[in-house]
Amino acid sequence: MDRRSFLKTTAMGTAGAAALAAPAYAQGNRTLTLVTTWGRGLAGVHDVAQRCADKITAMSDGTLSIDLKAAGELVGAFEVFDAVTSGQADMYHGADYYFVGQHPGYAYFSSTPFGMTAQEQSNWYYHSGGAELHDELGQIFGLKSFLAGNSGVQAGGWYTREMNSPDDFQGLKFRMPGLGGQALGKMGASVQNLPGAEVYQALSSGAIEGTEWIGPWADEKMGFQEITKIYYAAGFHEPGTGNSLAVNRDVFESLTPAQQSIIEIASAEAHHWNLAQFLTENGRALARLQSGGVQVRTFPEAVWDAMGAASDAVTEENMGDELFARIHTSAMESMAASSAWLSQSEGIYRAQRDRVRGV
Amino acid sequence: MDRRSFLKTTAMGTAGAAALAAPAYAQGNRTLTLVTTWGRGLAGVHDVAQRCADKITAMSDGTLSIDLKAAGELVGAFEVFDAVTSGQADMYHGADYYFVGQHPGYAYFSSTPFGMTAQEQSNWYYHSGGAELHDELGQIFGLKSFLAGNSGVQAGGWYTREMNSPDDFQGLKFRMPGLGGQALGKMGASVQNLPGAEVYQALSSGAIEGTEWIGPWADEKMGFQEITKIYYAAGFHEPGTGNSLAVNRDVFESLTPAQQSIIEIASAEAHHWNLAQFLTENGRALARLQSGGVQVRTFPEAVWDAMGAASDAVTEENMGDELFARIHTSAMESMAASSAWLSQSEGIYRAQRDRVRGV
Repeated sequence: MDRRSFLKTTAMGTAGAAALAAPAYAQGNRTLTLVTTWGRGLAGVHDVAQRCADKITAMSDGTLSIDLKAAGELVGAFEVFDAVTSGQADMYHGADYYFVGQHPGYAYFSSTPFGMTAQEQSNWYYHSGGAELHDELGQIFGLKSFLAGNSGVQAGGWYTREMNSPDDFQGLKFRMPGLGGQALGKMGASVQNLPGAEVYQALSSGAIEGTEWIGPWADEKMGFQEITKIYYAAGFHEPGTGNSLAVNRDVFESLTPAQQSIIEIASAEAHHWNLAQFLTENGRALARLQSGGVQVRTFPEAVWDAMGAASDAVTEENMGDELFARIHTSAMESMAASSAWLSQSEGIYRAQRDRVRGV
Repeated sequence: MDRRSFLKTTAMGTAGAAALAAPAYAQGNRTLTLVTTWGRGLAGVHDVAQRCADKITAMSDGTLSIDLKAAGELVGAFEVFDAVTSGQADMYHGADYYFVGQHPGYAYFSSTPFGMTAQEQSNWYYHSGGAELHDELGQIFGLKSFLAGNSGVQAGGWYTREMNSPDDFQGLKFRMPGLGGQALGKMGASVQNLPGAEVYQALSSGAIEGTEWIGPWADEKMGFQEITKIYYAAGFHEPGTGNSLAVNRDVFESLTPAQQSIIEIASAEAHHWNLAQFLTENGRALARLQSGGVQVRTFPEAVWDAMGAASDAVTEENMGDELFARIHTSAMESMAASSAWLSQSEGIYRAQRDRVRGV
């Protein structure tokens, strides 16, 4: 049964269904199609979409079955937004900054250069108005969206030479997509946006002089450590990249309150489960990379200063949009408030504990 | 209907129920009693227990209703463990370090001095064997336990004078319960374990020279800022205090797979929702406290060295227990691996971002 005929049936058939002898839940079993922006099996991101799907199916006791179609299986990675808003699919899992063309405010529900970490994003989203702003964006496009995954701070990336001053970025041929890439361009870099499959060859041949990817776990699978040993661990461009589960709003509103609650809570659980997964796997992979001779570097302060200024310049270009400006202001106010406490408590605790323990 | 007669009915009546005309879900509606270690309305901790209860009820579509009894309403705070293992209640929400008398390993599922932060605990619990060890403990006592709340790093506390060296702790009359208090005792302090209701008066009268409580949000409600302005934000004693939802194991096994999944996911979601709540509210409260003249201080390195050594001495006392030793080793290995990556990435990113932004 397709979704539209199902909706018609339930709208007209509720009273009649109650009179039937069969168990009520059997009346409402539905399959929802979930399209994703991830290739099947892609570490961390496909995993969390599949987890979300499986937990929704399990918790709903079979009243909802989620059929996951990875990128290219039903629609292409960047077509998922249109597929769900048009009703071709019921929900997508993906990084909302892919959809800044639809609205620039979507960046804040993935990551913005020099912006929130994963925990700061959660603080904002669940307790300082972020979720409500995500919903306001969703109302424009007919989506009901929930955060559902985060990779943590993405690594600064692989460089074929050291970066000792902002001048070293002049003309640097570097692979970095999105708003971070725009900021790097303002620092004078020649920014490339290569698809994943082409990055290794480009770095190996010297066509690019560096690349970011995700973090140690995913970077190691790409094999960049075979080409260069210079790894900047902390990056500025994606300090906590969130992913979202977005449901077609008509479909969401046709669900029972219990099913709606299941989708909301499964998404939020997956969000944090995934951050812990990336942090765990990144920790293990970093140790392996360092054992293999990779040298972890840190940008000097003057470079961070330039990255901050360039990031602000990129933000400024969108501040004419009223909703973007409200989202930006809300996120930055929340970030400043929670960061002050985090620095004074967890920041100092971890620094002292690791110093004493020699970690 | 009480729980035991319900269990009998469902065990014998499944085949018969399917033949009835009424909707199947109506057969299985149950109310489970949740007892907690928290006074009704206690900020952060009662909230998260109630959220867990409400989400389980909502997601189960009424097949489970959770009836929350706060501390003292059915049993006292510290009686919840026995109430659930004996079957008097179905589940408890509380801090598992209250139950180190039952097994010292329970401390790791709340917090240990100089141990894991909240995020590190999640990394360990969900991806490095922590949940499995929690379950191994639960099997001893007939519980099925899930992490379900975390306060983040608890504050170092309020002092009536500055602490400039380890010697300043000699004879210091300080309120600190649990393993942290034992560690402080090894540093020479005269450790008091006063109930919450008596702490303000004791600090005010000079009967104690300092106290820890939770963090800015809860501390401000206690009013300690009226007595002294010296506040050590980062503490060593509870670097990320987790709470658990623990279900009587027979009750858990009598639930449907969907209901079991709902309890698991509701607990995990609440765990992270609560951490974001504490971090958000602590950030806001810290700003208010500082506006009111509270001075945030940091212990000098020699004090942190002494705290580390004292914490290790407390741990050492339990290492003769095989399961405790396995839990400790598992947690510390996971902590070291994920902390190395966190320091190199998020630690450096946040320090540089906050420096550039002047946060």
